[in-house]
Amino acid sequence: MNSVGIVGATGYTGGELLRLLLRHPRVEIATVTSRSHAGAALADWFPNLQGATKLCFSDPRVADLAECDLVFFATPNGTAMRMAPELLAAGIRVIDLSADFRIKDTSVWSQWYGLEHACPEWVEEAVYGLPEVNRKAIRSARLVANPGCYPTAVLLGFLPLVEHGLVDLEHLVADAKSGVSGAGRQPRESTMLAEVAESFRAYGASGHRHLPEIVQGLEQAAGRPVGLTFVPHLIPIIRGIHATLYGRLLDFETDLQALYERRFQDEAFVNVMPPGSHPETRTVRGVNVCRMAVHRPSPDRVVVLVVEDNLVKGAAGQAIQNMNLMFGLEERAGLADIAALP
Amino acid sequence: MNSVGIVGATGYTGGELLRLLLRHPRVEIATVTSRSHAGAALADWFPNLQGATKLCFSDPRVADLAECDLVFFATPNGTAMRMAPELLAAGIRVIDLSADFRIKDTSVWSQWYGLEHACPEWVEEAVYGLPEVNRKAIRSARLVANPGCYPTAVLLGFLPLVEHGLVDLEHLVADAKSGVSGAGRQPRESTMLAEVAESFRAYGASGHRHLPEIVQGLEQAAGRPVGLTFVPHLIPIIRGIHATLYGRLLDFETDLQALYERRFQDEAFVNVMPPGSHPETRTVRGVNVCRMAVHRPSPDRVVVLVVEDNLVKGAAGQAIQNMNLMFGLEERAGLADIAALP
Amino acid sequence: MNSVGIVGATGYTGGELLRLLLRHPRVEIATVTSRSHAGAALADWFPNLQGATKLCFSDPRVADLAECDLVFFATPNGTAMRMAPELLAAGIRVIDLSADFRIKDTSVWSQWYGLEHACPEWVEEAVYGLPEVNRKAIRSARLVANPGCYPTAVLLGFLPLVEHGLVDLEHLVADAKSGVSGAGRQPRESTMLAEVAESFRAYGASGHRHLPEIVQGLEQAAGRPVGLTFVPHLIPIIRGIHATLYGRLLDFETDLQALYERRFQDEAFVNVMPPGSHPETRTVRGVNVCRMAVHRPSPDRVVVLVVEDNLVKGAAGQAIQNMNLMFGLEERAGLADIAALP
Amino acid sequence: MNSVGIVGATGYTGGELLRLLLRHPRVEIATVTSRSHAGAALADWFPNLQGATKLCFSDPRVADLAECDLVFFATPNGTAMRMAPELLAAGIRVIDLSADFRIKDTSVWSQWYGLEHACPEWVEEAVYGLPEVNRKAIRSARLVANPGCYPTAVLLGFLPLVEHGLVDLEHLVADAKSGVSGAGRQPRESTMLAEVAESFRAYGASGHRHLPEIVQGLEQAAGRPVGLTFVPHLIPIIRGIHATLYGRLLDFETDLQALYERRFQDEAFVNVMPPGSHPETRTVRGVNVCRMAVHRPSPDRVVVLVVEDNLVKGAAGQAIQNMNLMFGLEERAGLADIAALP
Repeated sequence: MNSVGIVGATGYTGGELLRLLLRHPRVEIATVTSRSHAGAALADWFPNLQGATKLCFSDPRVADLAECDLVFFATPNGTAMRMAPELLAAGIRVIDLSADFRIKDTSVWSQWYGLEHACPEWVEEAVYGLPEVNRKAIRSARLVANPGCYPTAVLLGFLPLVEHGLVDLEHLVADAKSGVSGAGRQPRESTMLAEVAESFRAYGASGHRHLPEIVQGLEQAAGRPVGLTFVPHLIPIIRGIHATLYGRLLDFETDLQALYERRFQDEAFVNVMPPGSHPETRTVRGVNVCRMAVHRPSPDRVVVLVVEDNLVKGAAGQAIQNMNLMFGLEERAGLADIAALP
Repeated sequence: MNSVGIVGATGYTGGELLRLLLRHPRVEIATVTSRSHAGAALADWFPNLQGATKLCFSDPRVADLAECDLVFFATPNGTAMRMAPELLAAGIRVIDLSADFRIKDTSVWSQWYGLEHACPEWVEEAVYGLPEVNRKAIRSARLVANPGCYPTAVLLGFLPLVEHGLVDLEHLVADAKSGVSGAGRQPRESTMLAEVAESFRAYGASGHRHLPEIVQGLEQAAGRPVGLTFVPHLIPIIRGIHATLYGRLLDFETDLQALYERRFQDEAFVNVMPPGSHPETRTVRGVNVCRMAVHRPSPDRVVVLVVEDNLVKGAAGQAIQNMNLMFGLEERAGLADIAALP
Repeated sequence: MNSVGIVGATGYTGGELLRLLLRHPRVEIATVTSRSHAGAALADWFPNLQGATKLCFSDPRVADLAECDLVFFATPNGTAMRMAPELLAAGIRVIDLSADFRIKDTSVWSQWYGLEHACPEWVEEAVYGLPEVNRKAIRSARLVANPGCYPTAVLLGFLPLVEHGLVDLEHLVADAKSGVSGAGRQPRESTMLAEVAESFRAYGASGHRHLPEIVQGLEQAAGRPVGLTFVPHLIPIIRGIHATLYGRLLDFETDLQALYERRFQDEAFVNVMPPGSHPETRTVRGVNVCRMAVHRPSPDRVVVLVVEDNLVKGAAGQAIQNMNLMFGLEERAGLADIAALP
Repeated sequence: MNSVGIVGATGYTGGELLRLLLRHPRVEIATVTSRSHAGAALADWFPNLQGATKLCFSDPRVADLAECDLVFFATPNGTAMRMAPELLAAGIRVIDLSADFRIKDTSVWSQWYGLEHACPEWVEEAVYGLPEVNRKAIRSARLVANPGCYPTAVLLGFLPLVEHGLVDLEHLVADAKSGVSGAGRQPRESTMLAEVAESFRAYGASGHRHLPEIVQGLEQAAGRPVGLTFVPHLIPIIRGIHATLYGRLLDFETDLQALYERRFQDEAFVNVMPPGSHPETRTVRGVNVCRMAVHRPSPDRVVVLVVEDNLVKGAAGQAIQNMNLMFGLEERAGLADIAALP
């Protein structure tokens, strides 16, 4: 059994890590830390865990964490960059679910996250944890920067087009929609049921933190600059991301359906649906799957529809997929659930 | 008092016409017809009307309808084109809420609606009932084709840009989202709560009936061909449309905020929000208002966010706005409600 | 025009008062106060009011309020009992939407609300604002204690049975369910969409603040002690209360349907539905109506189903109904809306 | 591996059986029948199964089914009683998820289900599949009548009180609430999102099919007649049942918390929560768990709060629990999921 720790597990991604890891056949949770909840039973904070574990939150101590094989950070932005270096120096592998190590250009990072970066050298070494792009590097990585929820969906959906230069890279559009769990567990007016149910709206239409992360991934795939308009919206549901991607085709010959099927044929967690499909977020609720469908409404335009669960393939599930790779386990270990329908 | 009739009032737009007309200060409902519900009390079919009216549905008879000053058709597509001509010939004015008279090119109409058109001559005469474009013609119209819900939102949002040629007309994108009441009251699996709640998906990504109607309106405003990608999505809420419109700016000088405010300054039912705003569908629920906000995420790109209630400004409310114009009443008569929040 | 003020209008009941009063034909809003929002436009805080008013919040000053004919308190519990006496002394009439003046026994009040009462003499004078019971006293009242949302529904539903001694008063059961707006606009984890959507639960099963208020009303109607079990539940919707009331019949002869119809025959805002009905909360959403249906599943048991909008007949709408009575206006003035369906 | 078949798997309980059985470690699905969908891939009808199975629906043929070790009927009421006898005669064990074999008194059954019973002799032999009551008999049963969703929750919640004669059996009240998946997958107006979202209502207040099934179970536990008032309500969520149970205590000494904990201490799927708890349906969504909490709001009254997932512990999960018992497997096999939160 591999032993893992979780720092800051009181939020939604932390809770999802717990749910998935508690039933993982090859991993044992050694330590779950929370400064604010130290001493409390996990099951008191996550009522779904009642009867499933007797673990308690403990104070975050490097000594305890250093006995794990791998540590997950499910902390707010700015924490992992301060705590992780000491663990890394002690030889502990780290998967950070926050944004601290995602953006290679730390000046861009600082501009969007409002903080000075505490360890730029680790940013350089960190591997961006999108297995469909960086599988090999993840296997041997010491530090994995787990992708954001929107970036996972948008990147996976655009990759085949961008890698082959089939679309006008200057004018990509990603219209993305997310359930409210993406906003975290901290109460605010903007996530109260009475404020968001029976309504729909965009946010961050003039700029959102996930934009530079997506652009970085697209530019790496394209090998040149990319112009992307990205507008996120809030869906009055708990879980689920739907990205609708628009591109102007430069090449009219390529069989797009075949291209997508080929690109992801060996991917356990990407499902390219049959032509004419419209993926539904409910079909990936609670599971580590990204489904997509390719449409061509007119000869020179392509529309890609992508869905994922923001807390699973967009966060905790992908983190476990990365962990499986780092531990040399079967990539699907602990991730074979089927979404409950309806 | 002006006297009106409603043909086919058992659906959602019919019910909304009833709700608004029952409290209209200058109009009296003379006849409400339904072949299937003849004899039944309106309040048995619309439980919100209990205590508000004692009217019953009657069989649709031209003789009865011909005693009204104006008749609304809230019927499925294909009905108004067969029944309206006789009323029009008798001098009765008609507002059709279905799609029968919206598309000037009847061969295009036939292609999308799967029917031969029964009276192309009335299509030609019909005025497209978007008061913000055709107010003067509506006042004297005999037959008004009330716009579709998506076309109302997308047209109003794009109009200022298109009328002034400020965007690349070949590559417009409209990513639209609608509550499920837009699918009507007929039960099907795709509108059951257990099938659509806690989920989100696109539909008609390769083509939707409202596309030709929107393109017709944009081309009329632009005076030349327009290329639009239009993808509708289903929001798991009852009412509300949110359109997110994307354009590539050709002109970098124009103050877009000022342009929008000027274009709609005299419009009682269009609200251009302050810079940086994100309109919410709930703020227009039940009311005849279209709110919008203009964003410019980069120098050469514009994003317009538009919301409306698909059953009000997108259907019944706009129909009453048209009726007010046709009767020479104050345009806001009976349409001054404030949305309930939360 | 009568002139009114609202103290503490930033919450949900305050917002609902504003929505209803802005369209009231015989009343003018003179002052809307909020210590925390002084200077801000109402429409910035309540986006549904954009275009409907240019009023701003002001600091709560007795001098300003004393120029109104009547002042509403939509403040947290404990505020009105401190501020109202000075206004009352100045001859201003007051309707308090909080719980400060509802419970005649101030020691019971203190026990449930955790405060010492600041003006027991005004508690004694205050009229409990349930027009269906106290209409005459309300007309001439100086101070009206507007009922709680649950008490309004439970009292109206039980009254006919209790007034006539038809049920075993020792074992009444009220199983009540409320939408989340009843919990107010203050963000907390328990009202976040991600925490309450797609779920259902009871709360306060061992005791809830509305219990003594309901019991007081039932005992007044019965003229003797009453034993009530009251369990509230949270429905994952925004607005609406459904109370399911259970009683053991002592009298098997009375025609319950006729009894209920007779009891409320002159009430504009209580709708007794036909036998066999099941009222839906959506039919009263946004409107000042309480609908109910009486069932008798076996000879010795009665079940009453009651619905209301917790923010309207359960709060702001009832307050305006009381205001109409106090001003000598038509009781329905400003309260004739029809619920939007669907 | 044990081999099982499912007859009529196109509904919600059938889909849930498939989801759970496809990941069951000791069972293989041999045949899934549907007259209407024969030939179609399961994954076309249940989009959550895409990538999880290549099975197709087949025509229901006794010969195929007779090769299974056990056959589930997930058919509408009235089908199993016609098809099961032939299988049973061939030695195939059967679990019927419909109501055909639940009510011992077939005249009562006929009255509520409107059908003549086709095989009363099998009704007599059938074991009521509530493992917490009939575990031993289930192990050796040839035919198990899987309990209804409401009966499971109400019976488990009342059992400790009724078995010990602690409450007045003449006046029990069960106020139950269910998500809409309980109404099945057949589209009707009453389950459309636009008709039930943002609303709440009771149904069947004068009588519901599950009443005789519950009363039968209570009377068996009590050993004498029981008077129960049962009112079901519709919650606008997909999954989940909440039962609020009211009783008048006859015994004031018993420690109810201890009683409940003792009664269910060996039950893997019943969770008695700590004193003061309010179980939430979301904590059992998708999992085979029934949680409950006991309250005593006054000395002589008890309130029991019970939650379950109507499709799992209330249907398919309980069926698999029964199957595990019949096959001599570990009772928890394939049923160890943790609910996803949020």
